[in-house]
Amino acid sequence: MPSAPTRDIKKVVLAYSGGLDTSVILKWLQETYRCEVVTFTADLGQGEELEPARKKAEMLGIKEIFIEDLREEFCRDFVFPMFRANALYEGQYLLGTSIARPLIAKRQIEIAKQTGADAVAHGATGKGNDQVRFELSYYALNPDIKVIAPWREWSLTSRTTLIEYAEKHQIPVAKDKRGEAPFSVDANLLHSSSEGKVLEDPWVEPEEMVYQRTISPEEAPDQATVIEIGFKKGDPVSIDGEALSPAALLTKLNALGKANGIGRLDLVENRFVGMKSRGVYETPGGTILHAAHRGIESITLDRGAAHLKDEIMPRYAELIYNGFWFAPEREMLQALIDKSQEHVEGTVRVKLYKGNATVIGRKSEKSLYSLKHVTFEDDAGAYDQRDAAGFIKLNALRLRLLKRGRG
Amino acid sequence: MPSAPTRDIKKVVLAYSGGLDTSVILKWLQETYRCEVVTFTADLGQGEELEPARKKAEMLGIKEIFIEDLREEFCRDFVFPMFRANALYEGQYLLGTSIARPLIAKRQIEIAKQTGADAVAHGATGKGNDQVRFELSYYALNPDIKVIAPWREWSLTSRTTLIEYAEKHQIPVAKDKRGEAPFSVDANLLHSSSEGKVLEDPWVEPEEMVYQRTISPEEAPDQATVIEIGFKKGDPVSIDGEALSPAALLTKLNALGKANGIGRLDLVENRFVGMKSRGVYETPGGTILHAAHRGIESITLDRGAAHLKDEIMPRYAELIYNGFWFAPEREMLQALIDKSQEHVEGTVRVKLYKGNATVIGRKSEKSLYSLKHVTFEDDAGAYDQRDAAGFIKLNALRLRLLKRGRG
Amino acid sequence: MPSAPTRDIKKVVLAYSGGLDTSVILKWLQETYRCEVVTFTADLGQGEELEPARKKAEMLGIKEIFIEDLREEFCRDFVFPMFRANALYEGQYLLGTSIARPLIAKRQIEIAKQTGADAVAHGATGKGNDQVRFELSYYALNPDIKVIAPWREWSLTSRTTLIEYAEKHQIPVAKDKRGEAPFSVDANLLHSSSEGKVLEDPWVEPEEMVYQRTISPEEAPDQATVIEIGFKKGDPVSIDGEALSPAALLTKLNALGKANGIGRLDLVENRFVGMKSRGVYETPGGTILHAAHRGIESITLDRGAAHLKDEIMPRYAELIYNGFWFAPEREMLQALIDKSQEHVEGTVRVKLYKGNATVIGRKSEKSLYSLKHVTFEDDAGAYDQRDAAGFIKLNALRLRLLKRGRG
Amino acid sequence: MPSAPTRDIKKVVLAYSGGLDTSVILKWLQETYRCEVVTFTADLGQGEELEPARKKAEMLGIKEIFIEDLREEFCRDFVFPMFRANALYEGQYLLGTSIARPLIAKRQIEIAKQTGADAVAHGATGKGNDQVRFELSYYALNPDIKVIAPWREWSLTSRTTLIEYAEKHQIPVAKDKRGEAPFSVDANLLHSSSEGKVLEDPWVEPEEMVYQRTISPEEAPDQATVIEIGFKKGDPVSIDGEALSPAALLTKLNALGKANGIGRLDLVENRFVGMKSRGVYETPGGTILHAAHRGIESITLDRGAAHLKDEIMPRYAELIYNGFWFAPEREMLQALIDKSQEHVEGTVRVKLYKGNATVIGRKSEKSLYSLKHVTFEDDAGAYDQRDAAGFIKLNALRLRLLKRGRG
Repeated sequence: MPSAPTRDIKKVVLAYSGGLDTSVILKWLQETYRCEVVTFTADLGQGEELEPARKKAEMLGIKEIFIEDLREEFCRDFVFPMFRANALYEGQYLLGTSIARPLIAKRQIEIAKQTGADAVAHGATGKGNDQVRFELSYYALNPDIKVIAPWREWSLTSRTTLIEYAEKHQIPVAKDKRGEAPFSVDANLLHSSSEGKVLEDPWVEPEEMVYQRTISPEEAPDQATVIEIGFKKGDPVSIDGEALSPAALLTKLNALGKANGIGRLDLVENRFVGMKSRGVYETPGGTILHAAHRGIESITLDRGAAHLKDEIMPRYAELIYNGFWFAPEREMLQALIDKSQEHVEGTVRVKLYKGNATVIGRKSEKSLYSLKHVTFEDDAGAYDQRDAAGFIKLNALRLRLLKRGRG
Repeated sequence: MPSAPTRDIKKVVLAYSGGLDTSVILKWLQETYRCEVVTFTADLGQGEELEPARKKAEMLGIKEIFIEDLREEFCRDFVFPMFRANALYEGQYLLGTSIARPLIAKRQIEIAKQTGADAVAHGATGKGNDQVRFELSYYALNPDIKVIAPWREWSLTSRTTLIEYAEKHQIPVAKDKRGEAPFSVDANLLHSSSEGKVLEDPWVEPEEMVYQRTISPEEAPDQATVIEIGFKKGDPVSIDGEALSPAALLTKLNALGKANGIGRLDLVENRFVGMKSRGVYETPGGTILHAAHRGIESITLDRGAAHLKDEIMPRYAELIYNGFWFAPEREMLQALIDKSQEHVEGTVRVKLYKGNATVIGRKSEKSLYSLKHVTFEDDAGAYDQRDAAGFIKLNALRLRLLKRGRG
Repeated sequence: MPSAPTRDIKKVVLAYSGGLDTSVILKWLQETYRCEVVTFTADLGQGEELEPARKKAEMLGIKEIFIEDLREEFCRDFVFPMFRANALYEGQYLLGTSIARPLIAKRQIEIAKQTGADAVAHGATGKGNDQVRFELSYYALNPDIKVIAPWREWSLTSRTTLIEYAEKHQIPVAKDKRGEAPFSVDANLLHSSSEGKVLEDPWVEPEEMVYQRTISPEEAPDQATVIEIGFKKGDPVSIDGEALSPAALLTKLNALGKANGIGRLDLVENRFVGMKSRGVYETPGGTILHAAHRGIESITLDRGAAHLKDEIMPRYAELIYNGFWFAPEREMLQALIDKSQEHVEGTVRVKLYKGNATVIGRKSEKSLYSLKHVTFEDDAGAYDQRDAAGFIKLNALRLRLLKRGRG
Repeated sequence: MPSAPTRDIKKVVLAYSGGLDTSVILKWLQETYRCEVVTFTADLGQGEELEPARKKAEMLGIKEIFIEDLREEFCRDFVFPMFRANALYEGQYLLGTSIARPLIAKRQIEIAKQTGADAVAHGATGKGNDQVRFELSYYALNPDIKVIAPWREWSLTSRTTLIEYAEKHQIPVAKDKRGEAPFSVDANLLHSSSEGKVLEDPWVEPEEMVYQRTISPEEAPDQATVIEIGFKKGDPVSIDGEALSPAALLTKLNALGKANGIGRLDLVENRFVGMKSRGVYETPGGTILHAAHRGIESITLDRGAAHLKDEIMPRYAELIYNGFWFAPEREMLQALIDKSQEHVEGTVRVKLYKGNATVIGRKSEKSLYSLKHVTFEDDAGAYDQRDAAGFIKLNALRLRLLKRGRG
């Protein structure tokens, strides 16, 4: 029987997927806290139908059901700003799960205000990063909100007890959910992540069945696909000349990436809560976008701007990974990054081939690449090679004085 | 007729490849400075015979000829320390040219001391980074050395005048050097770089003939190759269980990379002297090594250590790119990096397939990955999920106070 | 006789102080380049009459004379933005000279455009930082401008030849300028700096006569002065409740600092051009402002924001010191800093006493200081001490796993 | 009646001061956990007799009593390494409390091993930083140690209940401890800190009675004191030519600082646990040492080294403040810092006067200050001013290209 530190809760907004786990949570909230439950289900591009979630919520007696398509907002206000930074956590991870949590949390808080709820709840476990990302966002947006994290409170800690609880409360359990899933999945328009169970030994290669959103490089076509991505102010705006909304553009890149076996990552990473974990990520469109964005920056961003961005990037990525999207330091870094993107515009040609997304061309009306400065040919006075002598001499001066002083 | 600010030079150590350009420089030094010339030719794995350089130097009247195989020193003391840092310039470039210059400069200074020379000379142009890398290293190691950079001094600025000068001075000119090369190449055991001429338009994809050291992903085998790389103290020490010297190991990785189309990079980068340039790099073994090193770090490096390394990496890479290998700040960063590598040991399994070098397994006796902390299964008390509540609450406290203060 | 690499110059805008050196430069420009000279003299609060400069320029035949009071712009758009960052070069220097150069350069470029001039000139020497600051600003604002730096070009390298040149050309030489000044001075509303000659031995304490803008702590009153400084958006706006314009406020702080012996600094610093130099700085008002700004930030800035600012500050200060005010990376950092200052408002009480500027009180309607969270008293549930246990446990987790892994 | 989550504890090593609070803790541990208690009392220079602590522990029935003079180890292995970094938390705080905790924790863990104890305990509250510093150190050094933090566990949360408990258990309560102290104090050889109660309003100036270790600037002598501090490898080794051990040297600097009103700081700071707090710190000797260390570095440290140190300092200070002394990233930063200090040696002259510690002279056989490079006089060719032209031109190149590209 579930037990919990019963606090006084009137109404709670639950991040509700319609799946078994959050349905059990829904019931458990009703039973344990004896409070009203508002469900919030968002389409972030996870690729699932949302209407079944509505039906299930209704069946469980929910009166206030929020179902929203947030794909455009997700891309425009979360994914794209992050890609302006070329953000990679631990040098590799494109932060697909991390970036979705703040948006869900933000809508929960807004719905709580709208519906007069005094609490919010999520279905993340007590060992992962997502609980932190949800709750830091909740508190940052409403410092007085009450937060319920059932996985940290209840006693349904095994699959068996969870299913028993579901059956006891007439929550339908799909046949394929009865047994243990071989791994756990999170998905949205930016990526799919898989972890746990069969993936827990980092010496063992993930089986092909783990991958959901990409075909393998081996299965990809023998012929390369070449595309052109247009950028404005650091954001992608078109593919092969066709203007696309943020979500439409990412959707198209995902299809292209999937078809060419692009965007798989098998990673052991460091969680904010202190342990290492192994995840398998698939970010087909994001992987292409990351390469293309670096490509357009390479001709439109000044060196000083580019290097400063590279230096602050790991910190920025860490903040997002750790759940500090709504923290002032993330916003300050975003101001710095956005300032740099004003003239990041033009077109990048990318070749997609069996796992590789290779930039093979870039052009821009704002290009800072100057052929006459770099050419091996006579440059008609654009650059005086003798300047280099003075440049080197003064850069060397401190090193020479150092060597003299030290002998 | 060449002209130069004639300083008083007795003897100069020239970095001599035996090619046309440095042979002309040799002659020009003799003629312009009327000084003795010592030649220094190093095998850094560029893949050229060195004996012809000796013959040519003898033919040009040189008495003191130094020819040395520096491949092991290059890998052990320059390439491997740099790879401990996961160094990437501008997020992508593995610094293959940059890392070779300090070693050549160091040996020139040592030979100058040994032979009583008062000057050193190199064949780098006045527009590039290499002049800076050579000369900062010279000055850092001998603040009183005189430096001659013929390309910044002489009037042989076109191919035609250069060849006329060569013919006038009985310097043999190979037939294929009479015309303009379609691009210029630098090579060593770590990489080949190509730039200039046909590569100068960054919108145009490099032709296949530009690549020298890798086959294309398209040409690579349809079957993946899987290898295991062993590490000790952050350096690779074996492949598939076979212990190898640094240079032998990198040579083998190069062969594996080449065969699988791995390590090509088409990049617009920012030079230290201020302009952008486009380079094509091939770093087959280095690309595999970079991935594998991140792989072994992922299970053996603590999060705090790993993130600190990531944050200082761009600065470290910039220092090497800009030629500050022998600067105290590079040495300080190296001390920090080396401190972190004491326990970076174990084995990484890498899959090589058509341009992809993918880590698919890592294991170590020093692994910090703890299955019982991360597992979804009941963890027998290894981790108390309720701790997460307090962790989040206190991480959130400042954000809550902020929101309250700001309303 | 002066010599110079004569380039084709039509008209040059000279940063003209009216003193001996820039008058000689004026004449030398006319004579050497046979070009028209436009003089620009700015009041940045250096404390000198400007009308004599006009008379002298007229006497030397100048037709276009610009004399401008830039004190408000200087404080508002340069000094205050820099103080928002708590900028200190090498941990100590408040950048009083560095911050003035970009403004002078900017006006010179604007005047060049207005008057159709194709060149600008300054009176800074070839060994210092100011030449770099002027010229980087010139080039950043007009990449095609021609720059004349007479001290790097001419042969008037000793005091004697300079005075001979002046006398030969009927430039009046004040009696006290005939001998060598015992040190050289730069001044503006933010500070005075002194360097050279009697200050060149860093082991010898500067004599009292070096100081121009402050009395010594020993001479300052035995009674402390207490003031209250009001802030809005990170900038000071009032003293003791009286609203003041930026320049009026800094002027008043200068008087208060001077009277209390505040703001002296005797420093050996590292110049951008590569050598160390010793300077004596007096920044009376700025020293008070720096302390007060940290004071108001201490209660209104979130920890994450404050620490990020502290981490990027040395880079920001270095950029200003090196002359990169108009570089994109400085502007990006400024965007980050300004973002943090939106709520930095309130009042700081500062005690001024014999060299000390001590913050003894701070209050703000936007204060983030929460008595009920910090109090030793029972806090009525504001803070649950048990949260700390979880917080520590998860912060410790990686350290524990590390120790276990390493033994 | 005290209650606690009773875990199974056999023997605990308590950080024991001999004061009322830790005596109550001692008793409470015996009563609650029914375990043996080992006391550990360290002389870190807090200025209290230690023998009374022994007597009191004996009286409370303790068999294993450890009393140790750790002043030299504290200075040599903790304070001095930290001062090599010029560490300041939030730009101002010299970290006097923070740096003492790791040493106490380290000895507790060592004593636990020696005595076969399975737990450690400390007397820090649940709201402060010290609990974190103690416990992170404990766990880093022994991941399996059990930690007891009575203030987070028991019910003695008011002064009254604490004293009742003491009286009930025959713990002597000094008369002056019966009432509430007007503020709380921590002290060691580096500093005293005061906080709480009368200091809780950050708008109110601390009363004079708060200060324990310094006289006020107003009370200090009207005559300045000038001293010379000798350095070797970045550490102070002598005062006025007299070689002194680390603790003896810091003791002497403390006396000098105290007498001249030096080292007071009234600060609102950000705690690691998330709230702001107001502290009053007195660090007389440390304040002098900090200034002197910057002074010796100013002539012996290369610019690249100095600026890198400045950039990483805030992070280093934050790590110490937050309790991560034994974390790998602190050790990596220490390796970087120590690498820079190899040649930081020489003598600094400091003037002490009414709150000011002013560097007025520095000299070193390893000085990098080069008079002939910096002098205004003719420098006999040491420096070619024309080099500056090329230096500036190439530093400006990217800015010019940027302006051209942007128009």
